[in-house]
Amino acid sequence: MPLARISVPNILPTTKVRKLADAVHKSLVATCDVPEQDRFQLISTFEAAHMIIDPTFPDVKRTREASIVEILFLEGRSAAQKVALFESIANSAVEAKFSADDIMIALCENAVIDWSLGGGSSYGLHHAPDGGMK
Amino acid sequence: MPLARISVPNILPTTKVRKLADAVHKSLVATCDVPEQDRFQLISTFEAAHMIIDPTFPDVKRTREASIVEILFLEGRSAAQKVALFESIANSAVEAKFSADDIMIALCENAVIDWSLGGGSSYGLHHAPDGGMK
Amino acid sequence: MPLARISVPNILPTTKVRKLADAVHKSLVATCDVPEQDRFQLISTFEAAHMIIDPTFPDVKRTREASIVEILFLEGRSAAQKVALFESIANSAVEAKFSADDIMIALCENAVIDWSLGGGSSYGLHHAPDGGMK
Repeated sequence: MPLARISVPNILPTTKVRKLADAVHKSLVATCDVPEQDRFQLISTFEAAHMIIDPTFPDVKRTREASIVEILFLEGRSAAQKVALFESIANSAVEAKFSADDIMIALCENAVIDWSLGGGSSYGLHHAPDGGMK
Repeated sequence: MPLARISVPNILPTTKVRKLADAVHKSLVATCDVPEQDRFQLISTFEAAHMIIDPTFPDVKRTREASIVEILFLEGRSAAQKVALFESIANSAVEAKFSADDIMIALCENAVIDWSLGGGSSYGLHHAPDGGMK
Repeated sequence: MPLARISVPNILPTTKVRKLADAVHKSLVATCDVPEQDRFQLISTFEAAHMIIDPTFPDVKRTREASIVEILFLEGRSAAQKVALFESIANSAVEAKFSADDIMIALCENAVIDWSLGGGSSYGLHHAPDGGMK
């Protein structure tokens, strides 16, 4: 129910991309109380001309493996959790032989009433303590 | 001016994907006061390795046709409208031979001042009662 | 640290698409105080069947070159800045031989704590005046 969009250059081998996806999910579980099974990820590959990424802004060194991770998840995570999430994703990506500077992350938030995980059923209505009807 | 991103596995036939897109728009019109003509949809197809979707979380059964619908629309819809939207999309998808459990939906909201539908013109400025200048 | 997603029909030549991307970034710099180097853009091409765009809603005339620009950036831009951004993107697109009506724009916002630009480092923590810890 986080939904992660992972955008990578098409030069990356599939196995390495998968490790980045694993890093993102493992980190959400470890730092943001996301259930292990609650995994939804879309991976898109881009040719170099379609991925325009500044090589150094603001104080990093990116390579041609630079990738972008966007995560849409429920509002309410603390700043400390987000900081921990960024660190965890980067550290796990480094284990998968990425440069930490090649991992950019952007978070977006919505509400529990904004999700249906299937069956036409409102997640908020059936799974949130207040039925998501705030 | 809703903008719908529909992400589907590349095994789905084009006609079936189109029916899902139709289901999404028809449901927005029926439940969320979206004008019939106000249709903007982007469809992306994914190979299986690029669409990592848990098969059962939290209490559904997904097939390899599992698809994800993201809708960006104006803030202000009620919880009841969102619940009705989810039900309507799933029901219409079932008519198009999808399993209801294969349709995941995530909503995001922005403001009327956040849209230009063309011509460099602010939609909020020209079409909102208060000019979007709240 | 704005992240722009630019969705274009696959009939557009690469050079023209690049000019649209340039128009978007130049306009962010000119109207929204985005640093010149702060450029992150993902471009996706779509076949006609995968880009369902109403030809006239609400009062424009779109061609088969109609494109959609989504920008995720920091909250806090004024309505006047957004209006200026829309005008600037459309004007620059016209210089690149687009019809102004073919450029649709949608903005989304998040907070400074929602970004890591690399190295696992929180942008808010290291670059925002209050450390993003609001």
